[in-house]
Amino acid sequence: MQTLILFAHGARDPRWAAPFQRLQAILQTRLPAVNVGLAFLEFMTPDLPGLVEEAVAKGSREVRVVPVFLGQGGHVLRDLPLLLEQLRSAHPDLQLSVAQAVGEDADVLNAIADYCVGDLGR
Amino acid sequence: MQTLILFAHGARDPRWAAPFQRLQAILQTRLPAVNVGLAFLEFMTPDLPGLVEEAVAKGSREVRVVPVFLGQGGHVLRDLPLLLEQLRSAHPDLQLSVAQAVGEDADVLNAIADYCVGDLGR
Repeated sequence: MQTLILFAHGARDPRWAAPFQRLQAILQTRLPAVNVGLAFLEFMTPDLPGLVEEAVAKGSREVRVVPVFLGQGGHVLRDLPLLLEQLRSAHPDLQLSVAQAVGEDADVLNAIADYCVGDLGR
Repeated sequence: MQTLILFAHGARDPRWAAPFQRLQAILQTRLPAVNVGLAFLEFMTPDLPGLVEEAVAKGSREVRVVPVFLGQGGHVLRDLPLLLEQLRSAHPDLQLSVAQAVGEDADVLNAIADYCVGDLGR
């Protein structure tokens, strides 16, 4: 089984997680054969190592991590690679790879631009 | 003149700002009659008060702020309203309003989902 992990920052306010949970639900519906999870860097659980352990325990041999971050700073460019390095050492047989952050995708930026244009037109 | 301010978190790493700057450029092209700005909560400049001052100095009577945040936590639900309250006191004649955060828009989430599905298919 293939696992897709949405990796988000996390926050103290529980309301913060809502759009990420909606995204997870959309993706689980669109990808019924894939195990779609949501992990957080801080403040919320599960964290990425915990969710990778769980995926391995479920029998996943392939995990793709998508950073659901608009900007790529220290969290995506430094913290995440470090976490992945540790996970690769702990699970040498696991295929563990990471996508570009969602903010790097032109269609995502265009959808945000559409939202802004529509909002001004209201 | 109407002003649209994209309001983002900011980060220590200067590379973090790139997608927000691309979004600003897309919107300035799509909305040539609107003054499109980009302000940050922390770590980067300009901040929101500074950019609102600048918009007022340029003659803007109407400023719309769009939080370019996926999740709405303390920054969007507490820090931003406080900033807006202070700006409204300082500029009682300014029409200053705020949109829902971009992560609340279904089409934005669907674009992120499309990106994830396409990424897995690679």
